[in-house]
Amino acid sequence: MSGRPLDVLEASLNEPVTVQLKDGTSYFGTLAGYDQHMNVVLEESLGDDDDALVGGLDVEEVEDTTIIRGDNVVTITA
Amino acid sequence: MSGRPLDVLEASLNEPVTVQLKDGTSYFGTLAGYDQHMNVVLEESLGDDDDALVGGLDVEEVEDTTIIRGDNVVTITA
Amino acid sequence: MSGRPLDVLEASLNEPVTVQLKDGTSYFGTLAGYDQHMNVVLEESLGDDDDALVGGLDVEEVEDTTIIRGDNVVTITA
Amino acid sequence: MSGRPLDVLEASLNEPVTVQLKDGTSYFGTLAGYDQHMNVVLEESLGDDDDALVGGLDVEEVEDTTIIRGDNVVTITA
Amino acid sequence: MSGRPLDVLEASLNEPVTVQLKDGTSYFGTLAGYDQHMNVVLEESLGDDDDALVGGLDVEEVEDTTIIRGDNVVTITA
Amino acid sequence: MSGRPLDVLEASLNEPVTVQLKDGTSYFGTLAGYDQHMNVVLEESLGDDDDALVGGLDVEEVEDTTIIRGDNVVTITA
Amino acid sequence: MSGRPLDVLEASLNEPVTVQLKDGTSYFGTLAGYDQHMNVVLEESLGDDDDALVGGLDVEEVEDTTIIRGDNVVTITA
Repeated sequence: MSGRPLDVLEASLNEPVTVQLKDGTSYFGTLAGYDQHMNVVLEESLGDDDDALVGGLDVEEVEDTTIIRGDNVVTITA
Repeated sequence: MSGRPLDVLEASLNEPVTVQLKDGTSYFGTLAGYDQHMNVVLEESLGDDDDALVGGLDVEEVEDTTIIRGDNVVTITA
Repeated sequence: MSGRPLDVLEASLNEPVTVQLKDGTSYFGTLAGYDQHMNVVLEESLGDDDDALVGGLDVEEVEDTTIIRGDNVVTITA
Repeated sequence: MSGRPLDVLEASLNEPVTVQLKDGTSYFGTLAGYDQHMNVVLEESLGDDDDALVGGLDVEEVEDTTIIRGDNVVTITA
Repeated sequence: MSGRPLDVLEASLNEPVTVQLKDGTSYFGTLAGYDQHMNVVLEESLGDDDDALVGGLDVEEVEDTTIIRGDNVVTITA
Repeated sequence: MSGRPLDVLEASLNEPVTVQLKDGTSYFGTLAGYDQHMNVVLEESLGDDDDALVGGLDVEEVEDTTIIRGDNVVTITA
Repeated sequence: MSGRPLDVLEASLNEPVTVQLKDGTSYFGTLAGYDQHMNVVLEESLGDDDDALVGGLDVEEVEDTTIIRGDNVVTITA
């Protein structure tokens, strides 16, 4: 899952990701979409992905389809 | 309602959305329009959408047609 | 008065609008012009539009022709 | 003196204007030039324009030719 | 490893780098990718690179594939 | 020395200018160059220009060739 | 070493420079590269350039190849 940043996002579609924002909050969900500005769409993550939150503080697990505007993003961890 | 960020906005037209801004405020209303900068237009939400506000703190329900400039947006939840 | 953000501005020409800025101030006046950056021009609002200010705190009613640079704008309410 | 923002600047050439900046300061002078970024050039205002400063707090009247970079501007009042 | 900034990034692919962010944090990992905005992809650094952390305070060693959005970056040290 | 902002910079080449930055500091020197982003180059000002500093607080007189990145600039006074 | 900002950078290649950042820190090193965004590459400065640090507070002398993203730069002194 290495390569250029947008290649990593493409490879992470339908996979769980954690998006850390500049305001200190983080969102966890399934990556449903993205664009070249790193705007991303997260959806509720189903299945056995709960371990991705181990040790995660201040991480909000999205319940509804959530668009995050790219200029807020610090990191996206796949 | 998954896909690229602008596809999600297109699919959310005339649907209730919550727009969270960088200043900590949030706006709730019906998505009446948007553009490629994520500038959005919200209108008063009518009907049985009140449950969308359950648990919502600091969410302002728009009463008049409201343009929100995209660079203020953190998340848009459909 | 719904549609894309710039369509809403076009439809609001010569109508009273309230422009909320990132510094917490708001300006009330008649929309005399705008451009694609959401730079706007407000002029003194005449007539019976006083009710638009009901409940409005910290809203400055413009007296002279006022250009507001778009990157300061949070919301424009028509 | 209504119209699009740059039209208002064009119409204000050689006229006294007040430019309010994001840092809370304001500059008063004659508009000697501008460009599409709202960079402006102010020069000392001569004549009977002193009344433009009535009630103006923290307004600096320019004495030398002063370029103001547009991204600092909040409002320009003609 | 000198040259233009993107040339240095190209030469650093698959090498350990430290990325210092505007929020004061730093990330250490193997550079797996980058683009023209200085968005970068870091992966866990294996091998005998532990000495790169000597004296490094507040440096987070990435464990999962991590995209860092370029506008957060202050320095990248190869 | 009036006109569009870049015309004023062109006319100020090899003349003493004061550049005020967003962080509250100011630089005084001879304008040796500029570009369309208002990036400027200052050099030590020689000669009888000392009066330009009268009343100037927090103004640093450049001694070495100094490039100032344009996005820091608030005003340039010729 | 006068001229347009990028000309000054070109003339400073392989010369010692001091780069002052918006966060108050400064970096000293040999300019190994740059691009049109004022992203710069610094390398350890060898030789008799130690006098460039006289009086320099908070100046970090780079030891490893360091890319500095241009939007952090306030000044570059050659």
